[in-house]
Amino acid sequence: MSIQNILNLKGRRLVTIRPEDTVETAAMLLTTNNIGAAPVRDAGGAMVGVISERDLVRGYADRGAAVSSLTVQDLMTKEVTSIGAGDTIKEATEKMAKRHIRHLPVVDAEGGLVGMISLRDVMNARLQQTRMEAEELRAYAIASGGNILPRLSLEMPC
Amino acid sequence: MSIQNILNLKGRRLVTIRPEDTVETAAMLLTTNNIGAAPVRDAGGAMVGVISERDLVRGYADRGAAVSSLTVQDLMTKEVTSIGAGDTIKEATEKMAKRHIRHLPVVDAEGGLVGMISLRDVMNARLQQTRMEAEELRAYAIASGGNILPRLSLEMPC
Repeated sequence: MSIQNILNLKGRRLVTIRPEDTVETAAMLLTTNNIGAAPVRDAGGAMVGVISERDLVRGYADRGAAVSSLTVQDLMTKEVTSIGAGDTIKEATEKMAKRHIRHLPVVDAEGGLVGMISLRDVMNARLQQTRMEAEELRAYAIASGGNILPRLSLEMPC
Repeated sequence: MSIQNILNLKGRRLVTIRPEDTVETAAMLLTTNNIGAAPVRDAGGAMVGVISERDLVRGYADRGAAVSSLTVQDLMTKEVTSIGAGDTIKEATEKMAKRHIRHLPVVDAEGGLVGMISLRDVMNARLQQTRMEAEELRAYAIASGGNILPRLSLEMPC
């Protein structure tokens, strides 16, 4: 299963923000859309960062109420780790685990931003993939003429 | 695998906060400990809520800089969804999916707070569990005398 498959399941909606938007606008955007992070795009459409709930909370922890004088570019993560639409779920999981992040912007072959995936998306997809493989093995074990191990309890992922 | 197993893997450290602490203190606590949420305990030790990064960002989106005059009890989620230490990972996954939350406080048989688990903890544990079951099936299929299906690619979870 590729990252593109996850995007297809999620739908094509992509919420982005501008680097010069205020921190308050970013908070409202994340809250309204019930998302944990959004890619930051400049006026030319280029992705210049990612802003997350964690970035906002860290900014507030560092600055207190003075955070309101800042803009998205002051708090965003500028060194963006992205994933290719044709890359695998395994690659996404490894990137998220290695960098301890919960969101990855998805780029196409030309480097254009095409989506955003979360830890929840990736984990659900990996669970489903592993479960499908296990079910194939179960079918194979049955077809091989044996009885299935009694304590198996494969379930639908959340 | 039970929730207790996850807690054992995570270690016994539990970060909590008081309802009368400021929003700024909460932001610093989450940032310093690199966590997304913390249980709120009153002076008597009773859990009275949970405060998350999302609660703080929503508070800031609603109030702007005036959020600094608020305390944890103003923004925390008061109707806490918790999970028993003896409950299963499946129950935790279902609760998180149903309520769209990423953290669950863990309580013991007497209702006492003993830990906190995240979506990342639960998903990793479920992946590992499903993977172990798939490996058993694979071993069973081999023992049954058949060849393994060629396209299987079970991998370590992140």
